[in-house]
Amino acid sequence: MARIVMKFGGTSMAGTERIRRVAGIVRKQQAAGHEVAVVVSAMAGETDRLVNFCREANPLYDPAEYDVVVASGEQVTAGLLALTLQSMGCEARSWLGWQIPVRTMDAYAKARVNLIDGDALSAAMAAGQIAVIPGFQGVSEEGRITTMGRGGSDTSAVAVAAALKADRCDIYTDVDGVYTTDPRIVARARKQKYVTYEEMLELASVGAKVLQTRSVSLAMKENVRVQVLSSFIDDDAPPADELPGTMIVSDEEMEQIIKDTDMERQLVTGIAHDKNEARVVLTRVPDKPGAVTAIFTPLADASINVDMIIQNVGREKGETDVTFTVPQADLARAQALLEDRQDEIGYNRIITDAKVAKISVVGVGMKSHAGVAATMFKALSDRGINVQAISTSEIKVSVLIDEDETELAVRVLHTAYGLDDEG
Amino acid sequence: MARIVMKFGGTSMAGTERIRRVAGIVRKQQAAGHEVAVVVSAMAGETDRLVNFCREANPLYDPAEYDVVVASGEQVTAGLLALTLQSMGCEARSWLGWQIPVRTMDAYAKARVNLIDGDALSAAMAAGQIAVIPGFQGVSEEGRITTMGRGGSDTSAVAVAAALKADRCDIYTDVDGVYTTDPRIVARARKQKYVTYEEMLELASVGAKVLQTRSVSLAMKENVRVQVLSSFIDDDAPPADELPGTMIVSDEEMEQIIKDTDMERQLVTGIAHDKNEARVVLTRVPDKPGAVTAIFTPLADASINVDMIIQNVGREKGETDVTFTVPQADLARAQALLEDRQDEIGYNRIITDAKVAKISVVGVGMKSHAGVAATMFKALSDRGINVQAISTSEIKVSVLIDEDETELAVRVLHTAYGLDDEG
Repeated sequence: MARIVMKFGGTSMAGTERIRRVAGIVRKQQAAGHEVAVVVSAMAGETDRLVNFCREANPLYDPAEYDVVVASGEQVTAGLLALTLQSMGCEARSWLGWQIPVRTMDAYAKARVNLIDGDALSAAMAAGQIAVIPGFQGVSEEGRITTMGRGGSDTSAVAVAAALKADRCDIYTDVDGVYTTDPRIVARARKQKYVTYEEMLELASVGAKVLQTRSVSLAMKENVRVQVLSSFIDDDAPPADELPGTMIVSDEEMEQIIKDTDMERQLVTGIAHDKNEARVVLTRVPDKPGAVTAIFTPLADASINVDMIIQNVGREKGETDVTFTVPQADLARAQALLEDRQDEIGYNRIITDAKVAKISVVGVGMKSHAGVAATMFKALSDRGINVQAISTSEIKVSVLIDEDETELAVRVLHTAYGLDDEG
Repeated sequence: MARIVMKFGGTSMAGTERIRRVAGIVRKQQAAGHEVAVVVSAMAGETDRLVNFCREANPLYDPAEYDVVVASGEQVTAGLLALTLQSMGCEARSWLGWQIPVRTMDAYAKARVNLIDGDALSAAMAAGQIAVIPGFQGVSEEGRITTMGRGGSDTSAVAVAAALKADRCDIYTDVDGVYTTDPRIVARARKQKYVTYEEMLELASVGAKVLQTRSVSLAMKENVRVQVLSSFIDDDAPPADELPGTMIVSDEEMEQIIKDTDMERQLVTGIAHDKNEARVVLTRVPDKPGAVTAIFTPLADASINVDMIIQNVGREKGETDVTFTVPQADLARAQALLEDRQDEIGYNRIITDAKVAKISVVGVGMKSHAGVAATMFKALSDRGINVQAISTSEIKVSVLIDEDETELAVRVLHTAYGLDDEG
């Protein structure tokens, strides 16, 4: 017998018919002999509807009242899933954030969990009751409803799993696991049985959005074993206990698994792409102390996230070109801010390009192996793909390229690192 | 300065534009120098939507989970009204049932208020904050959400007013007060400035649904002064403080008002009609002990509410005809039950008629005056309207007539009791 937290997103909860499918999966998990808690999102579209109401009521909305409104979406699906489980003969009840309680800071609309008291939940689950928990919501120190920001239900699930010392947190999604790359681009992409927390974090941060980044950080901190698996399974599919999805585990567990299974350690476990970046070039910036500060301070003050930065030596002495990337959604704001400060910064021209893509190779294995970046540059240059910028971390190398070459680059790199499925 | 509880129904809360109108009325009431609490219903249609979800999820739904789902409708409107008031520069916050708390019994889906702790609300209101309270919901002794049955928001408002020792509970509705009869039938119907709790109860029970019956009982028990007034008012309308609607008051206050204002005490304050009854006649029932029990016990066991009952002496000795009324919605069930028991009861034929109407005259004044019923029968018979059954209470006389004669009977009686507006 194990203790398992299951999480279902808004697409899985969209309407009573889909909720019935979810209830079937939950019942099966309990029937396998486990203690089960389920964390649910609001019906797809419902949170948007509620957020729009708030915006109409008050464009500068009070986040505490916003939370009262938007938390209702998960309250509804939690009650409905409990009702549906009961109709199948299961013992079940809903546990709202303030009932458990899920204590958070008083930071409304972007709360973080301080403490979940798992005692009442544990007692109910030990007595055979399925606990149904609305994701995304908690209760503040002053006793008001809080929510954790869009997509917070993944984080709720991991936090509940940590509080319950669960053996596993299964996140049911519309993909059946974490692949070596986007299978829509590379047909021979392979589903991974295991990835580490760090790899998952890097993959999430570069656009392979399977889990909310914060939920992965929390799982890493609390050492919660998280499985990503598909909520669209038929009756013949292997049960969740056989780990049909991708398990996200610690470095240590990964080492042990490699040792136990004679699995080959891959240098690169995933190739991600992100078309939401835009490139900005400021030409002929004076090459003197303070120039770079004058560029990036106003962007930081405006909460514009600058990712890659490179300085090219300019044609004239004492001048450089500065290239960096910002999210496409912030490009217009960034451009306006910089144009206002042209004299102060002293650049000659501003050139922007939204038609770029960031390609990243990620893998814990590269910590101990050189040559990963060199392989990347050679593979790209062999196919004539021009690298416009580079950034690296301990387990990731990213390059900026022309957006039109995204698919080609991903395919080339997938082959270059030996990731193609041979089956 | 007074302390005032205001209540707005689902039609007034249907969408952010209407909520803005409500917020305008609330702000005006506060600007007049009062402490204000507002009780709100869910958006019109929302509770039906949520109830349907519950039925789809589980036709035999667990009322505790049903309450979790349906209580969300008022949670949303409470948050939105608080946001809208804030956008107008008012201090406001929502107070959910479990936050106040509104303690009820553990009878889910039909909870009754045990105790409302008014301390936190009072303190906030005294500090100038408008308290926005979702109607219909409370919290059980075991800390779960309860709801008070459909239409329970009127009761919530009265209960909150009692807990806050409010000077007045203003119920904003889609009518502008309580009339002497339905103004759609009698153009010269008059809006009443005052009616007593007892009169209001009788009017509600005979089909003049302005307030939920339970809310009137509670107001009577707790001596809460309730005003019924229109939520569709323009800027020139007299403020609520001038009592533009109908005040519902105790007998004693009514006596005092009559004394103070030299108002003439009316024998009859209202004439109600109800087309939702159906008549059942069982012919040639044996006139022996137990026969009537055999008829009405199975109906009572099936929760079918029998209203008027009369026995006519039959043509044969030792036999009577038994006539009674049941709600139209229950007629088919009642007929089936009685047909199953024809031998046991021993009647000859069952005759049913759904085309009947109950007309009632109501007034505290008739307690001390004879002749009210006689006036009624004479007025009806003068116009050839046949009375099929009669029932009376201390302050009410009801008759059953042919449904087609409803409007004629109401008009005739309105004139007979001197209620026509002379203005």
